[in-house]
Amino acid sequence: MELLEKLNWRYATKRMNGQQVPQEKLDNILEAIRLSASSAGLQPYKVIVVSDPATKEKLKAVGYNQPQFTEASHVLVFAAFDKLTMQHVDDYMQNIATTRNVSLESLADFKARLEGFTAQSAEQNFAWAARQTYIALGTALVAAAYEQVDATPMEGFSNDGVDEVLGLKEKGLKSVSVLTLGYRDEANDYLLGAKKVRKAKADLFEMV
Amino acid sequence: MELLEKLNWRYATKRMNGQQVPQEKLDNILEAIRLSASSAGLQPYKVIVVSDPATKEKLKAVGYNQPQFTEASHVLVFAAFDKLTMQHVDDYMQNIATTRNVSLESLADFKARLEGFTAQSAEQNFAWAARQTYIALGTALVAAAYEQVDATPMEGFSNDGVDEVLGLKEKGLKSVSVLTLGYRDEANDYLLGAKKVRKAKADLFEMV
Repeated sequence: MELLEKLNWRYATKRMNGQQVPQEKLDNILEAIRLSASSAGLQPYKVIVVSDPATKEKLKAVGYNQPQFTEASHVLVFAAFDKLTMQHVDDYMQNIATTRNVSLESLADFKARLEGFTAQSAEQNFAWAARQTYIALGTALVAAAYEQVDATPMEGFSNDGVDEVLGLKEKGLKSVSVLTLGYRDEANDYLLGAKKVRKAKADLFEMV
Repeated sequence: MELLEKLNWRYATKRMNGQQVPQEKLDNILEAIRLSASSAGLQPYKVIVVSDPATKEKLKAVGYNQPQFTEASHVLVFAAFDKLTMQHVDDYMQNIATTRNVSLESLADFKARLEGFTAQSAEQNFAWAARQTYIALGTALVAAAYEQVDATPMEGFSNDGVDEVLGLKEKGLKSVSVLTLGYRDEANDYLLGAKKVRKAKADLFEMV
């Protein structure tokens, strides 16, 4: 199946059937997330991968009781850094130096540019970091479709509630979005089979 | 080539060679963008697809003279609605009604929920819309890699400058990010062949 067919196959699954996603498929989706692009390559976020049933129940309780939280095989929580620190930048420089076998000194100009991010207000910083999580979310959605795993992107939950359930504040993180992974419940999902609604090409694109 | 191999093949191309992206590949990438998920399905953005050389020159001038603007085959500008209006919601309701052959009356509850978005401040509204463009950006990055087309995601440009070049303000839009599409310049791109730097799995993911 070609990629576009798979993107047409996917939809925001409202009911899942509890079936587990095989480890290999999960690993492929996570690896696609890990390879996602991000501003300056900083990857200013973490992804919490929840398979523990009790934690899924707690997430459901702070997620307007949407059934996907517990019917999913895995619940991915995309959580952005609440503030980029020099420690984050230093860790990144060390990673580049090690991966590419170059000196830290040779990265001084790049590092100086990234210091600009840490100088922003916490609010600007979080807004920037939160946007980066959406690139990873978009990547994960395509990767899940590629693996023929159903996925539901969600913003409708209590951010504070999710942060508390997962102890994110203490880790300098704030939840931004959720992606549930699993398999569509063919008997009970009212959206199954509904025609995909998208803007016409002429409405979405402008050719210059 | 499997998807993960393609995601490893891609990188933020700093120099492109001017080669044109074939229409079929461009169409596939745009169709993937059109199929992207968005909050409530509202697709609160447009994508400006620039191939005109003079316009690419103008974009480069407001984009810190980065060579990709003119060396790319196409420059995609992701521009979010500066404010979601009831007209946008009404257009969406009409699209659902037509696509799924249901009555507008049957969508009344859904419409009422979406009115909540239009009641937000312009700033909150734009922040929400801007985030949605990043799902489309992430989708486009994967789709380009799938088509073996090089792509460079960019936030480093004057937003006001790009808005003015493309007349976005008059259209109720604000530029958020750019994606250049084309082919890597193998002779001149210093990043070509550099090992991809990403966080280790254990640093990016937390398993619960």
